[in-house]
Amino acid sequence: MPVLVVGSVAFDSLKTPYGEAREIVGGAATYFSVTASFFAPVNVVAVIGEDFGAEQLKVFEGRPIDTSGLERAQGRTFRWSGEYSGDMNEARTLDTQLNVFERFAPKLPASYLDSDFVFLANIQPSLQLEVREQLPKAKLVGLDTMNYWIQGAPEELRRTLARVDMLIINDKEARMLAGVDNLRRAATAIRKLGPSTVVVKRGEYGACLFQDDTIFFAPGYPLEEVHDPTGAGDTFAGGFMGYLAGAGELSDRNLRRALVYGSVMASFAVEEFGLERLLRLERSEIEARFNEFKNMTQFEV
Amino acid sequence: MPVLVVGSVAFDSLKTPYGEAREIVGGAATYFSVTASFFAPVNVVAVIGEDFGAEQLKVFEGRPIDTSGLERAQGRTFRWSGEYSGDMNEARTLDTQLNVFERFAPKLPASYLDSDFVFLANIQPSLQLEVREQLPKAKLVGLDTMNYWIQGAPEELRRTLARVDMLIINDKEARMLAGVDNLRRAATAIRKLGPSTVVVKRGEYGACLFQDDTIFFAPGYPLEEVHDPTGAGDTFAGGFMGYLAGAGELSDRNLRRALVYGSVMASFAVEEFGLERLLRLERSEIEARFNEFKNMTQFEV
Repeated sequence: MPVLVVGSVAFDSLKTPYGEAREIVGGAATYFSVTASFFAPVNVVAVIGEDFGAEQLKVFEGRPIDTSGLERAQGRTFRWSGEYSGDMNEARTLDTQLNVFERFAPKLPASYLDSDFVFLANIQPSLQLEVREQLPKAKLVGLDTMNYWIQGAPEELRRTLARVDMLIINDKEARMLAGVDNLRRAATAIRKLGPSTVVVKRGEYGACLFQDDTIFFAPGYPLEEVHDPTGAGDTFAGGFMGYLAGAGELSDRNLRRALVYGSVMASFAVEEFGLERLLRLERSEIEARFNEFKNMTQFEV
Repeated sequence: MPVLVVGSVAFDSLKTPYGEAREIVGGAATYFSVTASFFAPVNVVAVIGEDFGAEQLKVFEGRPIDTSGLERAQGRTFRWSGEYSGDMNEARTLDTQLNVFERFAPKLPASYLDSDFVFLANIQPSLQLEVREQLPKAKLVGLDTMNYWIQGAPEELRRTLARVDMLIINDKEARMLAGVDNLRRAATAIRKLGPSTVVVKRGEYGACLFQDDTIFFAPGYPLEEVHDPTGAGDTFAGGFMGYLAGAGELSDRNLRRALVYGSVMASFAVEEFGLERLLRLERSEIEARFNEFKNMTQFEV
């Protein structure tokens, strides 16, 4: 089944200990789409400016990504620039220019309205809610958010959380949202706000899934070098939701495998700058690394 | 087979957000012995002062722990006091009184000299080396160390590392010892110093084993409350080495299971102050939590 993603498409400029990149294609919806497209057809809703040309659009081409929801608006595309140093777990934002993203009002093509699998990437919570309400048939609605909305729009975020099935969030923001330092208690508190499943992204430590009585851990892949962490979280979400959409069924077995695929995909994304590694990734490489995860975590009882 | 531990026995005074304790029995050798004794007979070499009485010695009683290597010296027992706050991943040391530990010269009873499994807890590296050289038949010698020796006695530590099979160390200290931030590269660098196996303790994130081409992760148990992290690392080592000694064989299967048992045991230790939880722990509780770890990490390929 296809997976629908609503989020940002951007030009990123960034600096890491391994180098610099200027105005490369990025954005949550982009990382998510490219990643999820390895597992399922993807429908993408986002806005681009007049400066997002044929060259940039190539990232979506040759893959099962439907870009009829990609709106072109007058003006410049969203721009972000940031810098990573030290443990590279967090970017220092140098500049944000919202440009056409400032007035982003997601418009869903009619053909997207019966989506089963939906990922609402990190945008204003009231916009996320508007999209969600147009998708009454959705089997699984996943949501991401960030400190900016947790602190700046807590009421809107609460209303949105009450209407989604799953929150996919990083550990620091999970703790902030719940107002609790302990991760397990934070997950329990968040589940009371609406989402029956909470997926916590833990950077180099991998990810963790909380649902009813189930807790499931996937480690982070032990890379020797992380060149650019940009988009790792959205790549994770793309692997996770993409795998579930492709599998079609929300069984415990599939949720576990999905978490591992999320961690697998994120590990590839950070190996090189921007989308580079993902754009030349082969399905066989994904499966090989998935098997490595099995080997790194399995033991006999 | 029995496991031999050489290390400290102490009186700990500590404060955590959950309360305070004054002069309770602690020390690396104590946490290790009590924990390992669930899996194998333990021989302990340590020094106690005149103030370590029958009441305190009870922690070793009723378990397969041979205390003939427990030397009683004139003076007071080693004392440590510390405080935990915030994320409780690190103690702030308030006071250290070495007392009889200052002149600790480990003496091995003749019956310990053919030990197969040995854990050299965190003491001065040259003492660790002296002990190691008395145990030519050892199948597996594990070593712990800390920032104090990494910075203050680097040459002695290098000589000792060259003679052991396994280093069991926390992540921060692994990075410091290797002089490399990346964990995988740090493990590779440490293995070049001698130990063919490196086990990295990662606090709430669990532990990770590096050996030849094998990397294996065990998560930390997702506790809702951590009351006292004191001794968690030595408890981990006790579960890990104790399980291996009990199993007798250093197979890949056993190493993996050992890492999980280490994580299981550490998760119990931190639930209450000092040795409290470990002293009333039942083998059935250990097995139940081991199975929980299986459930939290296993997925189908």
